[in-house]
Amino acid sequence: MTLNGRRPHDPRSVGIVERQYVHFDLSLPLVCGKTLDGFTLAYETYGTLNADRSNAILICHALSGDAHVAGYHTDDPNEKPGWWDDAVGPGKMFDTNRFFIVCSNVIGGCMGSTGPSSLAPDGKPYGLRFPMITVRDMVAAQRHLIDHLGIETLFATAGGSMGGMQALQWAVDYPERVRHVLFLAATPRSSTQNIAFNEIGRQAIYADPRWNGGDYYGKEPPNRGLAVARMIGHVTYMSENSLETKFGRRLRGYDRIPYHFDVEFEVESYLRYQGEKFYKRFDANSYLYITKALDYFDIADGYGSIEAAVARSRAAFLVVSFSSDWLYTAQQARLLVDALDQVGRDVRYHHIYADFGHDSFLVEVDTMTALVGGYLRERWEQFCAQRARSSP
Amino acid sequence: MTLNGRRPHDPRSVGIVERQYVHFDLSLPLVCGKTLDGFTLAYETYGTLNADRSNAILICHALSGDAHVAGYHTDDPNEKPGWWDDAVGPGKMFDTNRFFIVCSNVIGGCMGSTGPSSLAPDGKPYGLRFPMITVRDMVAAQRHLIDHLGIETLFATAGGSMGGMQALQWAVDYPERVRHVLFLAATPRSSTQNIAFNEIGRQAIYADPRWNGGDYYGKEPPNRGLAVARMIGHVTYMSENSLETKFGRRLRGYDRIPYHFDVEFEVESYLRYQGEKFYKRFDANSYLYITKALDYFDIADGYGSIEAAVARSRAAFLVVSFSSDWLYTAQQARLLVDALDQVGRDVRYHHIYADFGHDSFLVEVDTMTALVGGYLRERWEQFCAQRARSSP
Repeated sequence: MTLNGRRPHDPRSVGIVERQYVHFDLSLPLVCGKTLDGFTLAYETYGTLNADRSNAILICHALSGDAHVAGYHTDDPNEKPGWWDDAVGPGKMFDTNRFFIVCSNVIGGCMGSTGPSSLAPDGKPYGLRFPMITVRDMVAAQRHLIDHLGIETLFATAGGSMGGMQALQWAVDYPERVRHVLFLAATPRSSTQNIAFNEIGRQAIYADPRWNGGDYYGKEPPNRGLAVARMIGHVTYMSENSLETKFGRRLRGYDRIPYHFDVEFEVESYLRYQGEKFYKRFDANSYLYITKALDYFDIADGYGSIEAAVARSRAAFLVVSFSSDWLYTAQQARLLVDALDQVGRDVRYHHIYADFGHDSFLVEVDTMTALVGGYLRERWEQFCAQRARSSP
Repeated sequence: MTLNGRRPHDPRSVGIVERQYVHFDLSLPLVCGKTLDGFTLAYETYGTLNADRSNAILICHALSGDAHVAGYHTDDPNEKPGWWDDAVGPGKMFDTNRFFIVCSNVIGGCMGSTGPSSLAPDGKPYGLRFPMITVRDMVAAQRHLIDHLGIETLFATAGGSMGGMQALQWAVDYPERVRHVLFLAATPRSSTQNIAFNEIGRQAIYADPRWNGGDYYGKEPPNRGLAVARMIGHVTYMSENSLETKFGRRLRGYDRIPYHFDVEFEVESYLRYQGEKFYKRFDANSYLYITKALDYFDIADGYGSIEAAVARSRAAFLVVSFSSDWLYTAQQARLLVDALDQVGRDVRYHHIYADFGHDSFLVEVDTMTALVGGYLRERWEQFCAQRARSSP
């Protein structure tokens, strides 16, 4: 973790960064059959694009993430850094001395890119008039950003969870434009249980009368429903063991059980805190749209099989699963590994014994730095050697 | 499953049974420090109590169960039988040719026993004025029923899930009165994750404005909140594999994804159906009270350790866990097995490979009949042989 106050002097921080915006005045055709008429992407970059524009890595964020991967927006010493600050910076897993890192907020999101809380062409928030989106659509939108940045080929697409899905979708949809895919704690296809948990979260939002069919902008938002949805999600991100280790059956502020419906156990307090923290920063409709995109995700869609889908890709793959991740299990990751293997793609697979459940990809910094950072360095050196040989 | 229509002629059904009620005009002291001033228990019995009253088995029900374990209340051919009809009847796991089976609805419940929806002494429903209850209190109330039925010693206490907790609590609190404990798909101590899922279900109920602090009787009840709570519970009762096998990613009534927020996937329809079915039969406040009792459950409470608690018991134990049960895991069951072992109790432990998750104890009829039914028959024969030797 970055210590507050030390960052102006921290040589491993990307420092103060700015969120940028680009508006595309074009019709984006969507998988659902509708189009998005004009859209904005919020994005950030870290490091420097090299002369032949070959060192760009696109990091794709997860359900509740945003474009702010690393660094700070202000010099306020109490500001928390981006969501993967441990992973992005000089000498870190995504080494900004070597790579140019890009991350954009997904369409459908609520952190600067066009989503249901944005104004529709009629000047009113979309709400549920926003078209349904898929991971493929998120990636299609990002493709315009990568074009805009003048990048022909990405050295890698990378992400954990929904970020991994996007990274994979990139290699299937734009095979000529992706050299490597880093697929971390993700699945090539949402399982029935994945859909079930997402649907229950949505039901919690629908059940909040303040949700009002998605029409609540400018009024009280459906915070209670969104908080319950987040709590459900949060439990699926942690392992049984990590919950046990972190909280056990400890009481919150009592020596003995007080026997009432307010907070008694520490874990109850933690869940309420997570729910509250989330509704203060996230839009309920975005939660609905993005969980739907997760549920729709099956890389085989339109190809008949995972093998047929990934046979389109030209990338090399690094696939990482975590032993205690019960949201996107090793079994699910192996569906992708086996398919890549069958169609003869370059794939390296690591199953990491880690206790933090799905969140391990964010928490296991040292292991990930060695493994993912090591892979990127190795492949970058190979790439540079090849480039040197093939240049006149 | 019992086929509709065949039951009047089904020699293995207990047939038509009647729910009975007994009111206890006494003060029941509760663990929370309060008392319950007078309470009613709803119960059913199957089979015949023998002359020396030695063949009684108390079945304890789970969170959403009730006293109606087996048989039918009417001769309506469309009526569904009791919740464990597969297990209770002539020649079944709990063989009514041999045993006298008793089951009562827990206090705090809403199926005939005194709970938050009952009228308090002032003639108005208790609502949240109902005192907090624990598994120990449920068992203390049942003890009055067993006294009332003139049963000194239970041949067995038995149950799955929360029923197993009660069965265990019986042997700790009333060691002279329990010969065997059948502890199925249960835990001696609710884990952090168990508490977390229960708390999220409660949060879904609290978030429903119709809940109104528990004061909704005679008005619209908090059905939407209770439905969400049930959906959360339901997913924890099933395994990832059983969900996958049952529903996969199949669409409900569509050939292609329609891309909207109504039901798209089969599993969404199933969850909504489960939620709706539940709020039609269950009281939201009872759900709050009973999940709290689950969270409070730690058999070590007041004794310092599981070993010290179970050292009080004089019973023999059959402990059964299921490989795909991720709610009450084999690891949790083994905490009890190891403790019983350490204090030299007679314990038999079976870990069953089964795909249906926590619900396996209800679904795996053949395995359970052989295993649990076989255990009961064996122990009954031993008991009868001993009794014959010791009688003059």
